[in-house]
Amino acid sequence: MVKLVLVRHGESIANAANVYTGWNDVPLTEKGREQAKMAGERIKQLADFYPTHIHTSVLSRAIVTANIVSDVCDFLYLPITKTWRLNERHYGALRGLNKDVSRKVFGKDQVLEWRRGFYSIPPKQGSPMIDRRYKLCDQHLMPRAESLYQTQLRLMPYYYDKIASRMLRGEDQIIVAHGSSLRALIKKIENINDHDIVNLEVPNAEPIVYTMDKQLNIIDKKILR
Amino acid sequence: MVKLVLVRHGESIANAANVYTGWNDVPLTEKGREQAKMAGERIKQLADFYPTHIHTSVLSRAIVTANIVSDVCDFLYLPITKTWRLNERHYGALRGLNKDVSRKVFGKDQVLEWRRGFYSIPPKQGSPMIDRRYKLCDQHLMPRAESLYQTQLRLMPYYYDKIASRMLRGEDQIIVAHGSSLRALIKKIENINDHDIVNLEVPNAEPIVYTMDKQLNIIDKKILR
Repeated sequence: MVKLVLVRHGESIANAANVYTGWNDVPLTEKGREQAKMAGERIKQLADFYPTHIHTSVLSRAIVTANIVSDVCDFLYLPITKTWRLNERHYGALRGLNKDVSRKVFGKDQVLEWRRGFYSIPPKQGSPMIDRRYKLCDQHLMPRAESLYQTQLRLMPYYYDKIASRMLRGEDQIIVAHGSSLRALIKKIENINDHDIVNLEVPNAEPIVYTMDKQLNIIDKKILR
Repeated sequence: MVKLVLVRHGESIANAANVYTGWNDVPLTEKGREQAKMAGERIKQLADFYPTHIHTSVLSRAIVTANIVSDVCDFLYLPITKTWRLNERHYGALRGLNKDVSRKVFGKDQVLEWRRGFYSIPPKQGSPMIDRRYKLCDQHLMPRAESLYQTQLRLMPYYYDKIASRMLRGEDQIIVAHGSSLRALIKKIENINDHDIVNLEVPNAEPIVYTMDKQLNIIDKKILR
């Protein structure tokens, strides 16, 4: 039996402003930091939970959430890996747009399709990311817009190689990531179909705890509210 | 030209209480957190500084200092490695003792010798560390007391393999560690003799910036106060 805990970052200033964020690097709000502390307090209560590694994205809102959670849980000494493969879905030209404004610009149905269609790709952003954190990555892999499916495709290799491999050795793991990157992951591990995934929401800082058997079949799922 | 920045953690509750700490895991004081922020602000001002990695110990006071510095400097996305090899010197049976009390118990001269003699080893603690963070380490390597020399011996392999190797590729590095583990490192990289090292103090959260040439010869040393 092994445990996997998923945590979406606390509220960011973009969540609060109802703006598409994706790969934009925005900080947590004060409320977001409090939510992260609460998430940590809840994880700390878990019985039989001995994680060996924390995995997060290269975006500050997830990293700060991971740092707060590990401080509250006395897990500061755990290794943390930060990888672009756990980044939020890349929203392309929608980045930085208010969600209401985007509906006016592109039309309600079109925006609904981009948000809900598993394979729908929003319009690409004009130029590639100029950001030190991506300089060391293969530029051919860096997206300019992603469907949820493409998000899943670049996330799963990390999951299999770095997370599942440790769980197969009996080591509990923690992932701190984003609304849509976690949806992409949950779709795969819970085997949710392309239509039902639309209805899955991952709220800020409510830890999801999977208990799995030795073959990583899910035995139990709990949400810590 | 490459830069190496050394930072001793901010004030811990043990610093404030004048107690030998070593491998005891004690938190920062509020003042210590403020000092870490100031250290971050100063590092942020450095021109031509592009670190690729942050290295710290497995002790909370160093990790939290590293997290605060990287937040202030917008370096959150940088990989952080936490290793016992950067831990503070292990003070053996002195751990947790007030420094004045220790002089009464063991005698002034004896305590002075343990503190100042480069090769002097304080009395060993009775039992090995029982702590999850060391469970994954080779138990034969875990000390029960260390001289400053022994601290240097277990620290330098990490420095050469994981820090100097990156600097030889032109990558700036940050180390956030402890008073005595940094003294052990500085003794080696500045080639300070066994007697002069006694006079070297590394104050909390005052970053030391080395600029080095391609063979890692020191060209410049600056302390950011």
